[in-house]
Amino acid sequence: MDIPHPYLMFVGDVQDQLAAKTAQGIVDWRPEWCLGQLRLEGCKADLGIPDLTIAEAASRGAKTMVVGVVNAGGVLPEHWTSAIVQALEAGMEVASGLHARLESVPAIREAAAAHGRRLFNVRHSDQRFATGKGTRRPGLRLLTVGTDCSVGKKYTALALEREMRARGLDADFRATGQTGVFISGRGVAIDAVVADFISGAVEWIAPAAAPGHWDLIEGQGSLYHPSFAGVSLGLLHGAQPDAFVVCHEPTRTTMRGVQHPLPSIQEVIDLTIQCGRLTNPGIRPVGIAINTKAYGEDEARACLEAAEKAHNLPATDPIRFGVGKIVDRLMEDFPA
Amino acid sequence: MDIPHPYLMFVGDVQDQLAAKTAQGIVDWRPEWCLGQLRLEGCKADLGIPDLTIAEAASRGAKTMVVGVVNAGGVLPEHWTSAIVQALEAGMEVASGLHARLESVPAIREAAAAHGRRLFNVRHSDQRFATGKGTRRPGLRLLTVGTDCSVGKKYTALALEREMRARGLDADFRATGQTGVFISGRGVAIDAVVADFISGAVEWIAPAAAPGHWDLIEGQGSLYHPSFAGVSLGLLHGAQPDAFVVCHEPTRTTMRGVQHPLPSIQEVIDLTIQCGRLTNPGIRPVGIAINTKAYGEDEARACLEAAEKAHNLPATDPIRFGVGKIVDRLMEDFPA
Repeated sequence: MDIPHPYLMFVGDVQDQLAAKTAQGIVDWRPEWCLGQLRLEGCKADLGIPDLTIAEAASRGAKTMVVGVVNAGGVLPEHWTSAIVQALEAGMEVASGLHARLESVPAIREAAAAHGRRLFNVRHSDQRFATGKGTRRPGLRLLTVGTDCSVGKKYTALALEREMRARGLDADFRATGQTGVFISGRGVAIDAVVADFISGAVEWIAPAAAPGHWDLIEGQGSLYHPSFAGVSLGLLHGAQPDAFVVCHEPTRTTMRGVQHPLPSIQEVIDLTIQCGRLTNPGIRPVGIAINTKAYGEDEARACLEAAEKAHNLPATDPIRFGVGKIVDRLMEDFPA
Repeated sequence: MDIPHPYLMFVGDVQDQLAAKTAQGIVDWRPEWCLGQLRLEGCKADLGIPDLTIAEAASRGAKTMVVGVVNAGGVLPEHWTSAIVQALEAGMEVASGLHARLESVPAIREAAAAHGRRLFNVRHSDQRFATGKGTRRPGLRLLTVGTDCSVGKKYTALALEREMRARGLDADFRATGQTGVFISGRGVAIDAVVADFISGAVEWIAPAAAPGHWDLIEGQGSLYHPSFAGVSLGLLHGAQPDAFVVCHEPTRTTMRGVQHPLPSIQEVIDLTIQCGRLTNPGIRPVGIAINTKAYGEDEARACLEAAEKAHNLPATDPIRFGVGKIVDRLMEDFPA
């Protein structure tokens, strides 16, 4: 899935900012790709970028209109159809993160066919993958893993990409979830792949590369999450990471959507090494990323210091303090 | 997927017995469901059951014609279409284990619609599952796990069902692969489920049951297989087994389809307990099933004795010596 940019961000008429979370993530990480937003009457979300009509966006070179919003049930509201059809008529491709496929709406399917435009359904994967082979491939890889879902694995991988590129290092973020796919313009929503092909899809997402090149692979779920651990393990085996960063949210008491308590950071380090050795015997942790949003400055610093001491690894909040110290450690452990 | 029986077994004109492996498995384990076989001219496989025409099978009450063969590329040869259409016309449902969906052939799709018959594609899952919850549910469960793919996990689970039922115990085989689905008439090919729903699908396959009831769940892959470990882990978490049996093939040097060596039985026991505890803290091994086909009688007995001593668990070859001693241990560990 290679989604051409720049994007026109379609926000529909969603009723709060949270429903535009995917779109906001794209704007945060790829502002240079986002020409503007298209909001319908009554929309209560604002991405903080210029409002553009479809004609304006087309004239400024928008290549894809991105439907980067969630909606109850993942369906496409009927009154959004005409804007999507107009974008296709104006020469844009359309990409959606909704559960419903764009082509399930006849008017959209027909407009895309009539104008020779592509429809991208980022939550779906029609691509056929090979099963994973587990064979070592050149290039270096870092995977973000977690004590739970939604603890900053995508954010951390993107922050590492930004910091490493700023230092002149050769590094690419590799998306495994829908927001990440929009941000990088490629990748696969790994949780939508057929189970037999999880590790094979990750081998495709992060293929053989130059010896000094770093792939920064977005993790999913947790090896300790009873709903999604299979995805996390297939992702670990397919990524065959040289290095990993553990992401954590210290105030959470149960794992997302279930009654299970969170594992400790040490448990995640241990099981990640134990299982990761299967496809990369040299796998090692290089840092801890903790979301300290719930804490004041002093409490956040204390939390990070405690984690550093307990695990002998750099610990940071990527949003609050950046990921410089993790990149420092990575460069120490893997000198060019 | 609830496939009605009895079955008419369709073998087409496959060129060797191996291509009819799925059909043979059904005949071996459910002879009372298999009224007869339909072979086209030139067929080189023989299931050892009566040859029947479609009219004969229909008059004897066949409810489903089973396309239980594999074919290069998983496609449905064009010259098989007319037999399938005739079966639909004669009042049977049709179930297939091929990669190609039956309804992808217009004549089959139309005949099914015209006669109100169902088409089952066992390799595909159109059912929507919930994500796994990991919450303990009543009933007892045993999972067969393996040091590799194709080491007897299905056979062992079926042999346990047969032995336990013979002892008057309340036990059901639960299928997670296509041959198993045909044998039990229900279940899901778990490797065809979308990755996010692996454990949820297994929770559906082996649902809450009476306190003394045993589900004997067919395992898939291996926690140590770099291609499929994600499936195995999601299956383990969804099954939340009380007991597990490790299946092994002692002459194999690398895991199926990859270059990795097999893990030891002890490694599989340890990692299964470690990961399985997440959804069932009481998980324990109750036996080892070793495929000793490559050995003479003495060598086989020596191999099994060595495994018993090394692991302090009953070890048997289910085909050669039955699974009685594993059921003995199960009843000791879980008295009624």
